[in-house]
Amino acid sequence: MASMLWSCVTDFFTYETTKSVVVKSWSVGIVNRIVQLLIIIYFVGWVFIHEKAYQVIDTGIESAVMTKVKGFGYHDNQTMDVADYVSPPQGAAVFCIITKLIVTKNQHQGRCAETHGLYKCDTDVDCQRKFGANLGNGAITGVCLKSSNNGTCEIQGWCPTENDQVKRKPMLDVKNFTIFIKNSIRFPLFDVTRGNFPQHMTREQIKSCKYHPVDNPLCPIFLVGDVLNYTGQDVASLAEEGGEIGINIEWKCNLDFDIEKCQPKYSFTRLDAPFAKNKISKGYNFRFAKYFKHENGIEYRTLHKAIAIRFDIMVTGNAGKFNTIPTLINLVAAFTSVGLGTVLCDIILLNFLKGADQYKAKKFEEVSKAQIEESLAQKQGSQLSITPAMKCSYDSGALSLSPEQAV
Amino acid sequence: MASMLWSCVTDFFTYETTKSVVVKSWSVGIVNRIVQLLIIIYFVGWVFIHEKAYQVIDTGIESAVMTKVKGFGYHDNQTMDVADYVSPPQGAAVFCIITKLIVTKNQHQGRCAETHGLYKCDTDVDCQRKFGANLGNGAITGVCLKSSNNGTCEIQGWCPTENDQVKRKPMLDVKNFTIFIKNSIRFPLFDVTRGNFPQHMTREQIKSCKYHPVDNPLCPIFLVGDVLNYTGQDVASLAEEGGEIGINIEWKCNLDFDIEKCQPKYSFTRLDAPFAKNKISKGYNFRFAKYFKHENGIEYRTLHKAIAIRFDIMVTGNAGKFNTIPTLINLVAAFTSVGLGTVLCDIILLNFLKGADQYKAKKFEEVSKAQIEESLAQKQGSQLSITPAMKCSYDSGALSLSPEQAV
Amino acid sequence: MASMLWSCVTDFFTYETTKSVVVKSWSVGIVNRIVQLLIIIYFVGWVFIHEKAYQVIDTGIESAVMTKVKGFGYHDNQTMDVADYVSPPQGAAVFCIITKLIVTKNQHQGRCAETHGLYKCDTDVDCQRKFGANLGNGAITGVCLKSSNNGTCEIQGWCPTENDQVKRKPMLDVKNFTIFIKNSIRFPLFDVTRGNFPQHMTREQIKSCKYHPVDNPLCPIFLVGDVLNYTGQDVASLAEEGGEIGINIEWKCNLDFDIEKCQPKYSFTRLDAPFAKNKISKGYNFRFAKYFKHENGIEYRTLHKAIAIRFDIMVTGNAGKFNTIPTLINLVAAFTSVGLGTVLCDIILLNFLKGADQYKAKKFEEVSKAQIEESLAQKQGSQLSITPAMKCSYDSGALSLSPEQAV
Repeated sequence: MASMLWSCVTDFFTYETTKSVVVKSWSVGIVNRIVQLLIIIYFVGWVFIHEKAYQVIDTGIESAVMTKVKGFGYHDNQTMDVADYVSPPQGAAVFCIITKLIVTKNQHQGRCAETHGLYKCDTDVDCQRKFGANLGNGAITGVCLKSSNNGTCEIQGWCPTENDQVKRKPMLDVKNFTIFIKNSIRFPLFDVTRGNFPQHMTREQIKSCKYHPVDNPLCPIFLVGDVLNYTGQDVASLAEEGGEIGINIEWKCNLDFDIEKCQPKYSFTRLDAPFAKNKISKGYNFRFAKYFKHENGIEYRTLHKAIAIRFDIMVTGNAGKFNTIPTLINLVAAFTSVGLGTVLCDIILLNFLKGADQYKAKKFEEVSKAQIEESLAQKQGSQLSITPAMKCSYDSGALSLSPEQAV
Repeated sequence: MASMLWSCVTDFFTYETTKSVVVKSWSVGIVNRIVQLLIIIYFVGWVFIHEKAYQVIDTGIESAVMTKVKGFGYHDNQTMDVADYVSPPQGAAVFCIITKLIVTKNQHQGRCAETHGLYKCDTDVDCQRKFGANLGNGAITGVCLKSSNNGTCEIQGWCPTENDQVKRKPMLDVKNFTIFIKNSIRFPLFDVTRGNFPQHMTREQIKSCKYHPVDNPLCPIFLVGDVLNYTGQDVASLAEEGGEIGINIEWKCNLDFDIEKCQPKYSFTRLDAPFAKNKISKGYNFRFAKYFKHENGIEYRTLHKAIAIRFDIMVTGNAGKFNTIPTLINLVAAFTSVGLGTVLCDIILLNFLKGADQYKAKKFEEVSKAQIEESLAQKQGSQLSITPAMKCSYDSGALSLSPEQAV
Repeated sequence: MASMLWSCVTDFFTYETTKSVVVKSWSVGIVNRIVQLLIIIYFVGWVFIHEKAYQVIDTGIESAVMTKVKGFGYHDNQTMDVADYVSPPQGAAVFCIITKLIVTKNQHQGRCAETHGLYKCDTDVDCQRKFGANLGNGAITGVCLKSSNNGTCEIQGWCPTENDQVKRKPMLDVKNFTIFIKNSIRFPLFDVTRGNFPQHMTREQIKSCKYHPVDNPLCPIFLVGDVLNYTGQDVASLAEEGGEIGINIEWKCNLDFDIEKCQPKYSFTRLDAPFAKNKISKGYNFRFAKYFKHENGIEYRTLHKAIAIRFDIMVTGNAGKFNTIPTLINLVAAFTSVGLGTVLCDIILLNFLKGADQYKAKKFEEVSKAQIEESLAQKQGSQLSITPAMKCSYDSGALSLSPEQAV
């Protein structure tokens, strides 16, 4: 029994390697090495160096954005400051700079004539057809008010109604406003925190700089006029109609290098560009009201239709760092791919080369059933008297599952 | 020396391929081909066609959302328009439609009785125990006000205090409001920009359409009543208590096909659903104040407890496009997997088949130490006089590292 | 012809396996098994168990956050409640708690002297140099107002101008405020929805609990003082200067286990930390105005410079679940890697072991061109009269592409 066990152990500690045929032929040899070289170049050059397949990538960037607008504009006989034209005021990642205000003062609850052109009428029936319409300035009462030759439907709501066809000059001073952006990000996978301007910038440097894509790409202060120019937009038409501008802060960090090289890259786009062809809801506007009270307690309001440029600061990015898992998987893929070159060479060797049949005979050793049966017959004849060979088998890494063999 | 170098070069341009044993046995042959077929079907059908493992996926979708609500409601003897019930007004991706307002008018700073039921008292000590409580309408002063038989604690803050137990009919007209959603997205990896409605839709088509999951899945105008229905919610109870509705815009784009097929898919959920069992802070509400001033300069305010339906428009998605790296890695995995079929077949061949030992003898060529030593002894005897063979070795792609060999 | 077809079929259903050399040498055998063991341990322990390479990961978490602040503070002789100090009021994921207000009352449009220190002047020219400056309280008119010995530039805008150098005690009560966070998330890939507190928590449990990282990690109510402490910040200086605090909710879910174990983990950071060295725009503040009207219709405003603590609730996370594709790819990588151990052992066997040349002779079977040509010559001599063997070839899985063979 002890010797049986010993034999098992020695059988286990053997080394199995494939038997190879070495073909000394220039043609296949050169093809073989060239294919291998191409595969290695591909993996080293493209997969590893260019696409950095040895890195694990963190795409779950965490970001906090703080913004501050500065500047003074002149609109409708008033000087507008930040508290007047920035909405909402908290300095979040999405904010609007109001460039035009259509103001409807002293609105009280009541009934009055609709100003919207859609609501012309001759009789009450014309108005009753429009019950529930959403496009006017109030709920349709179903009465047609005929002041003169032209009648308009009566609405219930805030009166007098807004007339947004009024012409008003937009606040073009917006192009001189500055936006200060403070963006701190974190890559949770690597626990790396970064800010959007370098730590060595002093308070004075920051206060005096202006962002420029080439000369000053890390300055966090942006001139609105520049931003609009970078998106290829015309300041005047944008101030007139409103619009949505995207400021994209892109962080692409290779954390295998110095972390100081992990810097933001800014880009600017017009966000409503995909809708340019539809010509619906051109620009950007919203309505809000300021509420006042008479001394007698009656509330009234001033309605504002604000035409604004909305800025969406979007932070995207990813960080890569060396990691063993992708490296290993790609290395194995690379090694195995080098081996796949054999497939091509085998095709050449066994089919197209002079003497292909001879190569085939060398490479392949046929075992037919007939042979095995013959050999079995012989063996049975000669070995019947011999005790079955005790052996452990670990061939090909495959466990031998048959119980007979283990006996 | 020149001939040595030449021999090195010829040695390098050789081709090495494994020597194979071809077993002409129906049983293993069929198993082999079936296993290979299954593996190929799995890879082609599932990995490549279904899971698109040949694509690189961009999950870092950039998105900007603009919303606009339209409609008129009637609440507390007032007609409410957008400026009254949408908060915040800027038309961002998260906005609330106020459906019920509990208004506490004319609040001035001062001291008064708490209305909240928790603050009943008999003596000042009862109130002093509640110093620092956060749930009432103001800071507890520690005084118990006994107007009649029932006492309540005095608070310092805005007086009179809010009584939010007041019954008030919610604004059910909310179900007829419409939400217009403009969503532009970008996949930064592929620099692809898309909008949520097709470019061929005209202004009139958009203005007149209503979203329907089957009939009109690309219309960007949603009826609030429909949205609430899709989430399985009751409009009346939602308007009464408030709630949070998620409108999910999902972009799943296969950029290997026509980009026009890259379209959004909308889905609607009630966001507070995971908290349904807790019964805490049912619904959704928030408080805000409008500030007024008397002519004498004293400030007062109107407190609003706004019960609202909050809409969160969440944009998710990813885009896939053919890329060589995942394709190659998966192809190598597929090829190698096909080879793994051999493991199974080897187990069958070498263990279970009749004549397994014979197959084993054919497949494995044993080299024992004894053999090698014997051969070494012979060689040393016969080859001592011969100069060592100059050779370069590139066997198995492994560099020969031993300096002796290079000599 | 039928027999030819039959021969094709039998040729197809053969099984091809590599011929192996089994080396019965302790040294290489042990190295071989140890290398294999290390590779297996690495894959099982690190790749599969630790890094869960058998899972597909969903990183596109969808999240909705609802917040509610409670508490009363005392600032500038007023009791401040939620409607006074929370901005914006809707309870979104980003909100500010105002801790200090610098109030400039009764501002009317007009011209007045600048208060900002930068705008001292001797003559009008001093002021004209500053046209377009953004840092003051209004647009520079170019006039130098010399009231006494010191002159200041005149501005046009809201008068009187703000003096933000006023000393005012911040509202330190902020540390006793509580923040209630309701966060519901969804992993779209697996369609799993979760809330940030367990369903078995009752209304009373939630109302009475306070978050503690160890004792009560799932309570959704956070004491502001605690949150500021967790970030290592001093409440007093933060209330004085303002600041940005990040509350990170991290969801790391292993959906192969019980879904109840998919719970949030809270962490707290000071978001402006990366800018600590720059000393620019320390803290956090923003300006907003309340608008009032005189009975005669003239509008005036109260400007507020709000120094605030801004809370950004950021939700990140991912969920993993078993999936066949990554499992298979990694399994194949593992199996292939085990095979790669052979490369190392071959180097040892064929170069460093005693009898390396003998092993080499056993492993490699050389076929030189000379041999093939000789064999070809013989064959041609002997086989010229014989019809070419009809055969189908499926060797090495490679399709035989040569037309001659198919003949």
